[in-house]
Amino acid sequence: MYKIDLNSDLGESFGAYKIGSDEEILKYVTSVNIACGFHAGDPSVMRKTVKNALLNNVSIGAHPGLPDLIGFGRRNMSITPDEAYDMVIYQVGALYGFIKAEGGTMQHVKPHGALYNMAAKDEKLAIAIAQAVYDINPELILFGLAGSESIKQGRLVGLRTASEVFADRTYQNDGSLTPRSQSDAMVTDEKESIERVIRMVKDKKVKCQQGNDIGIEAETVCIHGDSAKALNFALEINNTLTNSGIEIISFE
Amino acid sequence: MYKIDLNSDLGESFGAYKIGSDEEILKYVTSVNIACGFHAGDPSVMRKTVKNALLNNVSIGAHPGLPDLIGFGRRNMSITPDEAYDMVIYQVGALYGFIKAEGGTMQHVKPHGALYNMAAKDEKLAIAIAQAVYDINPELILFGLAGSESIKQGRLVGLRTASEVFADRTYQNDGSLTPRSQSDAMVTDEKESIERVIRMVKDKKVKCQQGNDIGIEAETVCIHGDSAKALNFALEINNTLTNSGIEIISFE
Amino acid sequence: MYKIDLNSDLGESFGAYKIGSDEEILKYVTSVNIACGFHAGDPSVMRKTVKNALLNNVSIGAHPGLPDLIGFGRRNMSITPDEAYDMVIYQVGALYGFIKAEGGTMQHVKPHGALYNMAAKDEKLAIAIAQAVYDINPELILFGLAGSESIKQGRLVGLRTASEVFADRTYQNDGSLTPRSQSDAMVTDEKESIERVIRMVKDKKVKCQQGNDIGIEAETVCIHGDSAKALNFALEINNTLTNSGIEIISFE
Amino acid sequence: MYKIDLNSDLGESFGAYKIGSDEEILKYVTSVNIACGFHAGDPSVMRKTVKNALLNNVSIGAHPGLPDLIGFGRRNMSITPDEAYDMVIYQVGALYGFIKAEGGTMQHVKPHGALYNMAAKDEKLAIAIAQAVYDINPELILFGLAGSESIKQGRLVGLRTASEVFADRTYQNDGSLTPRSQSDAMVTDEKESIERVIRMVKDKKVKCQQGNDIGIEAETVCIHGDSAKALNFALEINNTLTNSGIEIISFE
Repeated sequence: MYKIDLNSDLGESFGAYKIGSDEEILKYVTSVNIACGFHAGDPSVMRKTVKNALLNNVSIGAHPGLPDLIGFGRRNMSITPDEAYDMVIYQVGALYGFIKAEGGTMQHVKPHGALYNMAAKDEKLAIAIAQAVYDINPELILFGLAGSESIKQGRLVGLRTASEVFADRTYQNDGSLTPRSQSDAMVTDEKESIERVIRMVKDKKVKCQQGNDIGIEAETVCIHGDSAKALNFALEINNTLTNSGIEIISFE
Repeated sequence: MYKIDLNSDLGESFGAYKIGSDEEILKYVTSVNIACGFHAGDPSVMRKTVKNALLNNVSIGAHPGLPDLIGFGRRNMSITPDEAYDMVIYQVGALYGFIKAEGGTMQHVKPHGALYNMAAKDEKLAIAIAQAVYDINPELILFGLAGSESIKQGRLVGLRTASEVFADRTYQNDGSLTPRSQSDAMVTDEKESIERVIRMVKDKKVKCQQGNDIGIEAETVCIHGDSAKALNFALEINNTLTNSGIEIISFE
Repeated sequence: MYKIDLNSDLGESFGAYKIGSDEEILKYVTSVNIACGFHAGDPSVMRKTVKNALLNNVSIGAHPGLPDLIGFGRRNMSITPDEAYDMVIYQVGALYGFIKAEGGTMQHVKPHGALYNMAAKDEKLAIAIAQAVYDINPELILFGLAGSESIKQGRLVGLRTASEVFADRTYQNDGSLTPRSQSDAMVTDEKESIERVIRMVKDKKVKCQQGNDIGIEAETVCIHGDSAKALNFALEINNTLTNSGIEIISFE
Repeated sequence: MYKIDLNSDLGESFGAYKIGSDEEILKYVTSVNIACGFHAGDPSVMRKTVKNALLNNVSIGAHPGLPDLIGFGRRNMSITPDEAYDMVIYQVGALYGFIKAEGGTMQHVKPHGALYNMAAKDEKLAIAIAQAVYDINPELILFGLAGSESIKQGRLVGLRTASEVFADRTYQNDGSLTPRSQSDAMVTDEKESIERVIRMVKDKKVKCQQGNDIGIEAETVCIHGDSAKALNFALEINNTLTNSGIEIISFE
C-alpha cells in the first residue's frame, strides 16, 4: 500500500497580524509545522495553534526559522553552524513547552525558509541542525528537501527523516528545485501537479526539466493554506491521491 | 539542621554584549536562574550557561522575563494573565531545550524583574505564571518573594515553592520590601545584612522598618555577581552562614 | 465657516503582514498618522505609505508608539519621561527621513495607543513628548485627546495642537472617554455618532454619560479604515459633514 | 599640507549593556559614527552620544547597520537594494532627529559591518545606499572602503565621499583587504601600522601582500576604542601623524 504525509506551515500570525487559514487547512493535512517566534508566530499564537492541531488529530512539528521577522525568515543570513544549532534548540524547546502543557507529543522538526534552503546545500549547517534535533529528542523526525544535505546528514546523525517534495515546483537533473527566478520553476496546472505527486509516490520518479526521469523519494508533500485557491487545491490533492490508492497518513 | 539555598541570575549577556561574572559567582551559589532571551540572554548564551552550570553542579532554573530587552525586563507592562502564561511557557520551554540537549534537569522557575514584582502583588498574574510552570512540569519549584501572591498561588496550584529573601533589602510591616524609592530601602552594612539572613533562617523572623518583628520564611537568598564587591559579599555570606551552622544547599 | 480635519492611522503593515485598507481610506481623510516601526510599520512600509500619502495630497504626521510589536503598542509600559522623549525623537526622525527623501513635509505628530493614552493623563509624559516634538521642529502640530494633559502641555511647550475627538466613543463628565470596559463606552448608531461630531464642531459641546452637556474642542476626528464597515462610515461622515456646512480640511 | 580624518564607531551600548570607551576615544578622533538602533545603540544611547559628540566638537555621522542585534550587524544578509535603501533612510533619519534636537549638524554616513562590506563589493547595494544618503541630504559625505564600489557609486550618485583606510589591516593586489581568515590579515606591529598610514596619506601608496606598491586614497582612518590598548594606539597615531606634518581634521 502506498502512503504519503501532507504537511502545512501553521501558526504564522503574530500579535495583531493574521496570516493563513489555519482552521481550514487543518482539515486537509496530516502534519503541521508550527512557527516558533523567530520568523513568525508568537507565544499566544503558538499555544492556540498547538491546541487546534491536537483537536484536529494532526501530527505536530516545530518550524524553526532565522531571527528575521521583517523578512519572514526568507533572507539568507551567514550564520555559523553553532548559531544554527542554538537557534534550533531554542525554538524547538519553546514549542515543546506548549505541546507539553497541552498534553501532546512532538513528531517532527522542519526548518523554515532560508534556514531550510541553506541547510539543503550546506553540509555543516545540515549537521548542526540535525544534531540539535537529535540532542533534544532522538525520536523526532527531521523533515527536509528530498535528496538534500539535510536528509543525508539527518540520517548520518541517527535521525529518522522525511523527504519532502513540492507539487507545484519543477526539478533539475541533479534533483534540486528549479530556482524561482527561472520562468519554468512552477507547475501551474493543478491536475498535472497532482499527477506528478502520484508518480513520485508510486514510481519514485519525476521528469526533470532536462527531459529525463530522475529518482526521488516522496514521504511528505508541502501544502499551502494561504488563499482560497490553495485550500481548494488541498481538497483536490486529498481526493485524487486517495482515489489513486495512496493513503494520506502521518508518520506516528 | 538549618539550611538555605543561594541563587543568582545568570546568562544575562546578549550577542556582543557581556554582563555579569558568571564564572565567578557559580562558585558561591547552589541554584542559578538563567535568562531566556526576552529581557536578556540569547540562544548561544543560554547553551553556554547551562553547560557551565552543569559543570559546577548547581541546580538550574529558568528566569523568564517580559519581552523588553531595552528595559532589561524591569519596566512594568500591562500584560494579561494569558499573555503571562504564554510567555512563561515559551521561555521555560526554550531553556528546557538546552538543558535536555546538555543532559541536565530543570529544578525551578523564577520570574525576572517586573514580571516577578507584578506577580508578587497581582493574584491573577500569580495564578497564570504558577499554572504555566505546573503545566510544563508539576515537579518544578516556583521561586517567589517570601509572603507574596506568587508563593500563595504557586502552592494553591500544586507546586512546591521556594520563598526568596533579600539580604540587602529592608521589610515593611506587611512583609513587603521597602520600595527602592525610600531612603531606608537598603541594608548597606554587609555584616548586618548577613546577620539578618541568619535570623530569618533560624528564627523565621526579621525586624521590619516599623520596629517590630514579623514572621518570614527564608528558603533561598538572591546573590548578585555583577561587581567585585558583590563577589566578595557572596564569599562572605557563604562563610558566615556555614560557620553559623546553616547548610548551603539547593532543593533537589 | 466651520471646519474639521479627518485623520487615520496608516502604514501599520509589517514585513509579510498586511493590516488596513490604506489605499481606500486615503480617499476620505485629510491627515494621516504613519506608524514608525516600534508598534507597527517597517522601513519599506513607511516609504510606500509616505509616497501614497503624497500622491493623495493628504497631510502627513508621525505616529510613534511603544516598543511593543507583539502588543501593537497597546499595552501600558512604565517608561520614564526621558525614555518617552527619546523614543519620540527616534521615531519622528525616522519618518522624517522618508518624508525628506520623497520631497514632502511633516505636518504633525500623534502618539499611538498606550503612549497616547498614558500621555493624556500623565503630566510628565505629556511634557516629555511635547518637548521631543518641539525640539525636532517647533512648527509641528501635536495631536492629542481633546481636553487632555497632552494638549495642555503641548501648548505650554509652545506647540500648535489639534484636539482629537472620537465619533464612536462616549464621554464622561470630566471630558475623558468612557473606558472600553464599560458597556456604554461605544456609540454604536452611526447616524448618531456623526450627529455628535457635528455638534462638537459647531456648538463645541457633547452630551456626556451623566446626562449633561460638557464643552469640547473638536479639531480632528479619528477615522478607522480596517474593515468594509469602517470604510463605509468614512464615506458617510465625509458626506454628512460636508452637507452640514463643515469643511473637511487639514491644518496646513 | 597633508591632512587626515580619524573616525571611530560610537554609541554601541544598548539598554543595560555597555560597550566601548566612548568618553575616552572622543578625545582622539575628529569624526564619530553613531549606531542607529539596528545592530547596536538605542534611542537613549543615541541622544547621549550625540550630546557628547557635540560637547567634544567632533563631526557626527550616522552608522546604519543590518537589523541583527544578536549578530551586532556583522552577519551578511541577502537583502534587496530596496531594503538597503529603506533601512538606511530609516536609521539616518532617526539619528537626524537627535542631532536636530541637540542643535547640531550631520556630516556623514558610514554603513556598519556586514552592510559596509557587502556594499564595498555589490554595485546594486552600493547604489541603493548612496542614493538613500543623497535623498536625505545631498550634502552628506559617504564614508566607504578606499577603492570600493561604495566610493565609486557614491561619487556617481553625486555625493562627496571619504575613502577609509585601516591601519591594522593588510591589502591585496586589487586594493581589497586581506580576509581576516588569512594569517597575514593583520598588521600587528603598531609602529609599522602608523608608518603605513603616513605613507598612504603622503604618497597615496601601500605595499600589498603580493610585494608591490598599489595606489590608495586615504581620507579617513578607522580608530577603535574598545580596550586600553586601542586607546593607547589612538593616542600614539595622533601624536605620530601630527609630528609627521599631517593635520588631523574632519571634513566640515
